[in-house]
Amino acid sequence: MTRKIKMGMIGGGRGAFIGAVHRMAAGIDGQIEFVAGALDVNPEIAILSGQDLYLSPDRTYGTYQEMIEKESKLPDDERIDFVSIVTPNHVHFEPAKLALEHGFHVVCEKPMTYSYEEALVLEKLVEESGLIFALTHTYTGYPMIKQAREMIQSGVFGKIRKVVVEYPQGWLSTPLETTGQQQASWRTDPKKSGKAGSVGDIGTHAENLAETITGLKIVELCADVTTFVEGRQLDDDANVLIRFDNGAKGVLHVSQVSAGEENPVNIRVYGEKGGIQWHQHDPNTMYVKWLDKPMEVYRTGTGYMGNMAQAHSRTPAGHPEGYLEAFGNIYRNFAKVVQAKLDDSEPAPEYLDFPTVHDGVRGMRFIDAVIESGERNAEWIKL
Amino acid sequence: MTRKIKMGMIGGGRGAFIGAVHRMAAGIDGQIEFVAGALDVNPEIAILSGQDLYLSPDRTYGTYQEMIEKESKLPDDERIDFVSIVTPNHVHFEPAKLALEHGFHVVCEKPMTYSYEEALVLEKLVEESGLIFALTHTYTGYPMIKQAREMIQSGVFGKIRKVVVEYPQGWLSTPLETTGQQQASWRTDPKKSGKAGSVGDIGTHAENLAETITGLKIVELCADVTTFVEGRQLDDDANVLIRFDNGAKGVLHVSQVSAGEENPVNIRVYGEKGGIQWHQHDPNTMYVKWLDKPMEVYRTGTGYMGNMAQAHSRTPAGHPEGYLEAFGNIYRNFAKVVQAKLDDSEPAPEYLDFPTVHDGVRGMRFIDAVIESGERNAEWIKL
Amino acid sequence: MTRKIKMGMIGGGRGAFIGAVHRMAAGIDGQIEFVAGALDVNPEIAILSGQDLYLSPDRTYGTYQEMIEKESKLPDDERIDFVSIVTPNHVHFEPAKLALEHGFHVVCEKPMTYSYEEALVLEKLVEESGLIFALTHTYTGYPMIKQAREMIQSGVFGKIRKVVVEYPQGWLSTPLETTGQQQASWRTDPKKSGKAGSVGDIGTHAENLAETITGLKIVELCADVTTFVEGRQLDDDANVLIRFDNGAKGVLHVSQVSAGEENPVNIRVYGEKGGIQWHQHDPNTMYVKWLDKPMEVYRTGTGYMGNMAQAHSRTPAGHPEGYLEAFGNIYRNFAKVVQAKLDDSEPAPEYLDFPTVHDGVRGMRFIDAVIESGERNAEWIKL
Amino acid sequence: MTRKIKMGMIGGGRGAFIGAVHRMAAGIDGQIEFVAGALDVNPEIAILSGQDLYLSPDRTYGTYQEMIEKESKLPDDERIDFVSIVTPNHVHFEPAKLALEHGFHVVCEKPMTYSYEEALVLEKLVEESGLIFALTHTYTGYPMIKQAREMIQSGVFGKIRKVVVEYPQGWLSTPLETTGQQQASWRTDPKKSGKAGSVGDIGTHAENLAETITGLKIVELCADVTTFVEGRQLDDDANVLIRFDNGAKGVLHVSQVSAGEENPVNIRVYGEKGGIQWHQHDPNTMYVKWLDKPMEVYRTGTGYMGNMAQAHSRTPAGHPEGYLEAFGNIYRNFAKVVQAKLDDSEPAPEYLDFPTVHDGVRGMRFIDAVIESGERNAEWIKL
Repeated sequence: MTRKIKMGMIGGGRGAFIGAVHRMAAGIDGQIEFVAGALDVNPEIAILSGQDLYLSPDRTYGTYQEMIEKESKLPDDERIDFVSIVTPNHVHFEPAKLALEHGFHVVCEKPMTYSYEEALVLEKLVEESGLIFALTHTYTGYPMIKQAREMIQSGVFGKIRKVVVEYPQGWLSTPLETTGQQQASWRTDPKKSGKAGSVGDIGTHAENLAETITGLKIVELCADVTTFVEGRQLDDDANVLIRFDNGAKGVLHVSQVSAGEENPVNIRVYGEKGGIQWHQHDPNTMYVKWLDKPMEVYRTGTGYMGNMAQAHSRTPAGHPEGYLEAFGNIYRNFAKVVQAKLDDSEPAPEYLDFPTVHDGVRGMRFIDAVIESGERNAEWIKL
Repeated sequence: MTRKIKMGMIGGGRGAFIGAVHRMAAGIDGQIEFVAGALDVNPEIAILSGQDLYLSPDRTYGTYQEMIEKESKLPDDERIDFVSIVTPNHVHFEPAKLALEHGFHVVCEKPMTYSYEEALVLEKLVEESGLIFALTHTYTGYPMIKQAREMIQSGVFGKIRKVVVEYPQGWLSTPLETTGQQQASWRTDPKKSGKAGSVGDIGTHAENLAETITGLKIVELCADVTTFVEGRQLDDDANVLIRFDNGAKGVLHVSQVSAGEENPVNIRVYGEKGGIQWHQHDPNTMYVKWLDKPMEVYRTGTGYMGNMAQAHSRTPAGHPEGYLEAFGNIYRNFAKVVQAKLDDSEPAPEYLDFPTVHDGVRGMRFIDAVIESGERNAEWIKL
Repeated sequence: MTRKIKMGMIGGGRGAFIGAVHRMAAGIDGQIEFVAGALDVNPEIAILSGQDLYLSPDRTYGTYQEMIEKESKLPDDERIDFVSIVTPNHVHFEPAKLALEHGFHVVCEKPMTYSYEEALVLEKLVEESGLIFALTHTYTGYPMIKQAREMIQSGVFGKIRKVVVEYPQGWLSTPLETTGQQQASWRTDPKKSGKAGSVGDIGTHAENLAETITGLKIVELCADVTTFVEGRQLDDDANVLIRFDNGAKGVLHVSQVSAGEENPVNIRVYGEKGGIQWHQHDPNTMYVKWLDKPMEVYRTGTGYMGNMAQAHSRTPAGHPEGYLEAFGNIYRNFAKVVQAKLDDSEPAPEYLDFPTVHDGVRGMRFIDAVIESGERNAEWIKL
Repeated sequence: MTRKIKMGMIGGGRGAFIGAVHRMAAGIDGQIEFVAGALDVNPEIAILSGQDLYLSPDRTYGTYQEMIEKESKLPDDERIDFVSIVTPNHVHFEPAKLALEHGFHVVCEKPMTYSYEEALVLEKLVEESGLIFALTHTYTGYPMIKQAREMIQSGVFGKIRKVVVEYPQGWLSTPLETTGQQQASWRTDPKKSGKAGSVGDIGTHAENLAETITGLKIVELCADVTTFVEGRQLDDDANVLIRFDNGAKGVLHVSQVSAGEENPVNIRVYGEKGGIQWHQHDPNTMYVKWLDKPMEVYRTGTGYMGNMAQAHSRTPAGHPEGYLEAFGNIYRNFAKVVQAKLDDSEPAPEYLDFPTVHDGVRGMRFIDAVIESGERNAEWIKL
């Protein structure tokens, strides 16, 4: 019989940002109980963090190894069903691997790993184990992205010719990492973030969005990668020309030094007969453009939305849903698929829709290609 | 020691709309456990609804009377701390009264009661009992509304002169109630909704928003109230001239037959030196206008937001929060105040900010005045 | 044979605002020559103004009486065909009357006259003379307004139920008239402006727009009219409930103390099946809303525009046309109709579309009704 | 003494598009008389076109050579002061050269010539003759572009780091040139358009806008140039990475197959402390972004606009000016400078602001570089 599934969180204690987002996203639909955590590398902070969050003291662990170890010995009905990994990039691989090896399903932050090689290892482990693995590429969780994908892939716009995807932020316009700001520090530290800065942190979102929405694959790219802030160790801006497997061309650009920008992820896709435009700052709206008739403004929660979009919104039109709900869609779908596994049933098809370990591998390949192209003065690199 | 507080829900079972919204809003911040329910008047549906929601069968009640009765006999640590009333208007008063009489705190849907007289009874009960009562006027839960209120009431715009508040919807443009649609049916039925249709359902939101944001009181109004859809028993449109206690003038109009409109609650306030404009469809944005300098675009999650707005958003700028988060702010604040009561401590001041029984009384008075003015061909009625 | 027609301007010299607008509007389409003027009451300024504008000295007149007198004695091919009256309100009637009596066609600023009675006199004169009279209600000159009118009156939205028309400005938020500012001074002076301030200056635009676009007539209104700025002699704000001849209801509000507002004339019209929304700040765009399908964004210059809209735009889609072009449409159409008269031919039907003396009479009636209602504490007044 | 200046037009007769735009732009400010024309290569159409436009028959010429020849023999006060060249690209150079050689000032459409070499010849001729030459890069004529330039070059945003400039159109999404459509035909014909399609037609606008607004020079670029429509002879899409002389990076992309797009030229510029965003579809608005305070919305016609912007708008805030007015600014400034030359006086500094022959040379160099990079699979090419 279906029941709520149980989450153990790795990272996300006091001072963290994305951990709280994961807890809210996991909590919103009432399918998941948050029952255990290894919330900080510092055991003292881990314990205080557990208290903040009303965790039972005996399931507030000092390390993720301890949590995985001990939880795996609890009875089926009691132990966690999955771990949620919300640590910096360099602490994704080991806990994910350990969790999978102990039979736990996994939700993991992106970029999936520190290196492409690690990504391949995880992919193999997931495939062999049959465990469920969700990667939190939040933006594809928005209902309007489901609608865009459905329309584009239905062919209503004809063959896709051009894609413009952008992710400009401004918060790293100054050397924020030198002030001790925690989010800036690890993201600009190659030992924690990997070989890429902005390209990994937000570039992978742009890549994932473009490929998900169009169903096309980037086959080649040429990138101008820059570090604008003096002394910074990783890139903070990248302009990339892209080519897709169907002959479409595109532009992908990301930045963390676009001063004054918040988080306006956006994408435009053009086919022979029309196309779409979507902005994350107004996520419930999509502009649908046509060669020879008025632009249409699609809105989530309306009766004309397709099935997939309908299945991923919670309120009627005009009641804005946002980032947390998009994030929640990944958790909700993941939970439904895990529940089906527990019940030995088939999940409804709409629940199968969340980013997986394969998206994670793809993202790591993208990072490698952009960084390589950047190092070679924007030579074309094949993916 | 602070703990999660426990919710028992009245209404909100299968087929309901707003109950699910309340559960998501209550769940998002991890301060509230949903442990009991009297989810439908039909006991069979109530039980199935409880199963859907993973409620324990022994706390899935057939009636709200039973729930209140039985829960009040459970030990302090186990029983519900409050009831959440999410039924149609005519079933607000009795359960609220019963809950208060049994010492339970209350969250209640708006308009607060069926009649103004009932509202006064509840107000008295709340005052006498010292219990916490929250009314879910969602729109004032948005962080940007906190910011607007703070700026307007600080006097930066000088004396307020004009307020324009609108709540146009289109979903009742046709006689939807004749098709059996549940939401339309009770809202257009005077036995369930009260003497007002659109004026009660959404007009009270507009009134509450205008008074909350400006800190002014409507002292007089003149209303043109219309039922456009043939056969409908209650109003579906109202245009109202309003006058405030400081001499400001205003326009308030609401409609459920503005075909093509979703839920664009919006408000503009003008003072001597500038003013603000806010649209619920883009709730994280506020336009701040000035006599002699460029309009500014305020955005939630930014560093320049005031303390109250900061305390009511959960994510950095550019990560849209929406209706559920605004709703969640009411529940979060209510929970914090109840927790403080349990701990015998003082809640932080930002948590004291949610609509109360007094807003409910005010809303019922507004309904009476608009309907009376409408019946007298738009005579001025004093509030 | 068709030729350019010749304009003599009354008012609009140095220091004036709207005269220059008229000259640009008249010049844009190459149908009108500006050949004579009585540009200021002060003959010295009139002469300097004529020099500024490359007018021939012998056709730069000291008074409008002199211009009308002398021009009427010039040969047909040489003399002016029409006068353009761009003076303050109290100097509309006399020159218009004199021009008509001398056989000149007239373009006149709005509101048409100082009083309703004068308006009726002009109407009679125009009817009896068969001369062409255009009133510069600019906003109905926009191509998108033609489109709105065509769609609404075609019935695609069903019966019209609600109209919201707004004209908020902020430029008179302070007692600007006390600083000697010329535009503010006459507009707030009852001896020059008439009995109304904002209601005449911009309220008539709102009224004209609402009636033109819907084809409905306002039959009754109730108005809350206010002077917010201390010491001001005329109204600077008005909120009006309106009722139309088909049973539609509406709200019309205008203000010159909405601090921070520029000139955002806007209108929303709702019918049974959908409706439109238009904002003058973005005049080439119209939002077309539907009960059950996505909102459409109509844009001028596109292939799907109707004939009337097509006939009133000059450039392809995406080349913004603005206020001067809308103004120019009135002059262009007026010129084409005068040319047809000179040729004794029939003008193409699209050229017959400009505001006339009847719009002027209607506007003066509207002013009277609003001011009367305001004086009677918002009693309903029939038009 | 200052007088209107006299224009002779080359091209722009019946069936043409841009000629009418030039005439409206030249007519709007009352500084220019249109007195002569060689309006079509077909003399019969040229004559009919002259009649349409009320040209005197004796100054309606069959060829531009004839016009230049005959006009140059007329008395100073009678003959044209300048020619306006509004023909397809391959007929810019010869008439411009001939006009300059006969002492006429020139207004010329862009791209300036058919080839870079021709551009250099014209540049030399202009420099040697001291004649005035204006190139109609319309978009830099907008008042808000003046404001953007002033702010950026004042340094308020710090050092510029990133520029994103876009010019997507959709009108060539189908093989329109095969239908005989005149505008499509010559633009896709290498014999008339030159070596570039979209890159010349609209890419040069983007390049000119980016360099004008920032005061920076593109020093290097790498371009992915595509022809999407089968059978088309020239490019219809280009994605370009750009590098500026101060180290700034950028993206420039243009397209005529972005189905559903009208003419949304737009630019974003980011400096260390903030930046700007401007969209041609809403040309009177500019978004000014800051690292640490609310975005500001600048609007033309307001008191806070800088001197240059003020000098290039004609109406108060909220009266939209558009494409024709921007175009008019080029003609007005050109006229003022020619008038000053006739008067042997110094033009006011604001009139010196229009694109010149040097912008034309720069544009031709840009075309060459983009096309070369495209042919070499997006190698970096230095300008």
